[in-house]
Amino acid sequence: MSDAKEALERARTSGWSGRLWSAITPIYDAILEHPFITGLVSGDLDVETFRHYIIQDELYIRDYAKAISVLAGKAPTWRATQEFTDHATSATKYESELHESVVRELGGRSTMIDDAKPSPTALAYINFIRSHVHGSSFVDGVASILPCFWIYAEVGIHLGELGSKNKAYQNWIDSYQDPAYVDAVIATLDIMNGIGAELGPQDENRTLDIFVTGSKYEWLFWDAAYRRETWML
Amino acid sequence: MSDAKEALERARTSGWSGRLWSAITPIYDAILEHPFITGLVSGDLDVETFRHYIIQDELYIRDYAKAISVLAGKAPTWRATQEFTDHATSATKYESELHESVVRELGGRSTMIDDAKPSPTALAYINFIRSHVHGSSFVDGVASILPCFWIYAEVGIHLGELGSKNKAYQNWIDSYQDPAYVDAVIATLDIMNGIGAELGPQDENRTLDIFVTGSKYEWLFWDAAYRRETWML
Amino acid sequence: MSDAKEALERARTSGWSGRLWSAITPIYDAILEHPFITGLVSGDLDVETFRHYIIQDELYIRDYAKAISVLAGKAPTWRATQEFTDHATSATKYESELHESVVRELGGRSTMIDDAKPSPTALAYINFIRSHVHGSSFVDGVASILPCFWIYAEVGIHLGELGSKNKAYQNWIDSYQDPAYVDAVIATLDIMNGIGAELGPQDENRTLDIFVTGSKYEWLFWDAAYRRETWML
Amino acid sequence: MSDAKEALERARTSGWSGRLWSAITPIYDAILEHPFITGLVSGDLDVETFRHYIIQDELYIRDYAKAISVLAGKAPTWRATQEFTDHATSATKYESELHESVVRELGGRSTMIDDAKPSPTALAYINFIRSHVHGSSFVDGVASILPCFWIYAEVGIHLGELGSKNKAYQNWIDSYQDPAYVDAVIATLDIMNGIGAELGPQDENRTLDIFVTGSKYEWLFWDAAYRRETWML
Repeated sequence: MSDAKEALERARTSGWSGRLWSAITPIYDAILEHPFITGLVSGDLDVETFRHYIIQDELYIRDYAKAISVLAGKAPTWRATQEFTDHATSATKYESELHESVVRELGGRSTMIDDAKPSPTALAYINFIRSHVHGSSFVDGVASILPCFWIYAEVGIHLGELGSKNKAYQNWIDSYQDPAYVDAVIATLDIMNGIGAELGPQDENRTLDIFVTGSKYEWLFWDAAYRRETWML
Repeated sequence: MSDAKEALERARTSGWSGRLWSAITPIYDAILEHPFITGLVSGDLDVETFRHYIIQDELYIRDYAKAISVLAGKAPTWRATQEFTDHATSATKYESELHESVVRELGGRSTMIDDAKPSPTALAYINFIRSHVHGSSFVDGVASILPCFWIYAEVGIHLGELGSKNKAYQNWIDSYQDPAYVDAVIATLDIMNGIGAELGPQDENRTLDIFVTGSKYEWLFWDAAYRRETWML
Repeated sequence: MSDAKEALERARTSGWSGRLWSAITPIYDAILEHPFITGLVSGDLDVETFRHYIIQDELYIRDYAKAISVLAGKAPTWRATQEFTDHATSATKYESELHESVVRELGGRSTMIDDAKPSPTALAYINFIRSHVHGSSFVDGVASILPCFWIYAEVGIHLGELGSKNKAYQNWIDSYQDPAYVDAVIATLDIMNGIGAELGPQDENRTLDIFVTGSKYEWLFWDAAYRRETWML
Repeated sequence: MSDAKEALERARTSGWSGRLWSAITPIYDAILEHPFITGLVSGDLDVETFRHYIIQDELYIRDYAKAISVLAGKAPTWRATQEFTDHATSATKYESELHESVVRELGGRSTMIDDAKPSPTALAYINFIRSHVHGSSFVDGVASILPCFWIYAEVGIHLGELGSKNKAYQNWIDSYQDPAYVDAVIATLDIMNGIGAELGPQDENRTLDIFVTGSKYEWLFWDAAYRRETWML
């Protein structure tokens, strides 16, 4: 087992991060069993649905990158500022690469992102993060962005082991195998554990609640993409 | 027609507020036709559903009052600060009265609010407002809180004219007839029109989009209460 | 000794608030000995200097009231939201009364506030508070507004016991004797002690540092008014 | 004349940026004539004073980088987010290089930054920026960080033409000649001009006022370092 995988396992099983993860194991299991995820592996997932997902993800990642930037600006230590500044840069670049891949591999148009609007679930998730990153304390903000960061690393490893029969899906899976990405997740969990050691019971409960809700949004986001959810009015 | 009703009509039909309202007339019409609203008038609305709605509304109003306070703190003129400080005080008091009425008239328990969690739609709406009030410019924040403020005044007048066969529902309807409430809405629309006169085209588009989305959340909030919406996981 | 004075003494000598106060006793002593304060009592303070101070104070209180509103919107409990909403309303009204008193008793013009610009020290103090209230966690924000709130209550009691030979100064001193004001300070200290019980060592140090700096600004604000400080360019 | 110098001249003399610059020419001239700046050229500036300045600057740049990150997170266009994310990364790296240079060339200790506290003027400037970046609209935030960004580019060119007799000072001067730095300033001015074209008169006045005050802080920051300013209590 690589150092990175060991570090991820340690994060899932000990300290403040261990308590956070144990609160979401049913949600994480539900994600792995979702037809979107199993369809990525089998290759049965409709390419139109996947393209729809990628466009929604691109919209989401733009706001995600912005959220990470705000956290870099609110971080209580210079080390955390440096980490989050790096993550924001990576997320910004990742969005561009994702966009190119949509156009190149999935037959999208380059203006697709400009015409797109977030689905109800995507908008709810984006505003959940914006709300906590801008309006709550730093640790609440970190708790709101952590599910996406962390669950993708775990899902990425899971999917990396299974692979996909569809080349475009495999390329997407590979993008989450990037060791730099996993290292960034580990660094963030390390910062979170440092903060966690200082939290009183009320802060712990609030932060845990935000983390669980964010994890629900992860499942809901896959599900909304799978249903190609639209606005009721 | 009273001065207040004239002022509301002027707001709906002229200036920047007129442009905002004309963008949501289909949504407003859909609200008036929703079975929750028509059921309030006929008295056919299930009291359990109404109690569920009130609890969700109470959770919402707490965050709404907090949002108004933040806007009071971000307002660009002292007059706007004074107005929004007054609104925040009113919203805070209204939440207490609503709570007492649930316990007294609807057979609720006084701890009901402490046990309650926002439904998916209520949380999405709350975070939509928090997101803009904390993370966007002042005018965006005002655009996010305005649909609730304004649509309730209009719905209140509409329901006031029709009345309800159910006494508890009638009492609730009466609470939105309060002239002080309508005056507060008119003052806010006046502030919004003052800001609107200074907006460039990009700001106008963004603000209009926020206002329309907030109005959709109004319909969705009634609808979620009617469906007694729960979390999928 | 009244209940309020007992409550203030308890706050100064025990709990988290006791630790905060003990860190600023030298600063508090320096404030009581400042010629501005001793001149208020003896009546020797130049009326022009006092008027200059009131104008700067009025500018400051506007931003102070706005800061309290933002804290009402960020408060982690509904009780704290209710308290801070009340304080914001009081501060907003107090500003108006102060303004009228300047015009009426001190020979000021009613447009004085519109022409005024904050002095370098007033601007530094305002931005210190805005910076923490908007950009830091809730407890940091409370720590930034607490010195003004608390020190004025103590200075008010001190001056109330000594009195002033100048009628206008006596009226101003009386405004800080208002039992509602002292009760608001006690309620805020109570909230602060509740939060303090949950803070880890890093949060404590950061919060303490903010509180001490805010207290320095209190002395600096009196001193800048006494010197009728102007901008160097 | 290089393209970059031409672009800077155009920014100073036309459009919204031209109006901003024309409001601060007396302040800019006062900066060039300040003994700190003339002492850098002649080499007469005390090295102890320069080291004191660098430490204060390092503290300042940490908060400056954080402010840029927050602006990246609040930017109304994705292009502006990308630009500001890049600037934040550059500012974060620049701080590290500056720190090494203090230790290496100016005989500083590596723990110097950990022991340092911002001077009154440095703290006032930091809080001025934090206050606007966190608590005001995006354009106000940009107006608050722009003076440092822009004036350093101009002072850098000015000093680059004159040179310094002191090798350590010359190295510092060279760091502001970096074409990537000047390009970043030009990109920011371009974004500012885009926003400026949409501003109404009230927004223009407020933004201009923030920009002028920030420029005063530039002069005050040099001056405070020159005086090795300390806290009065």
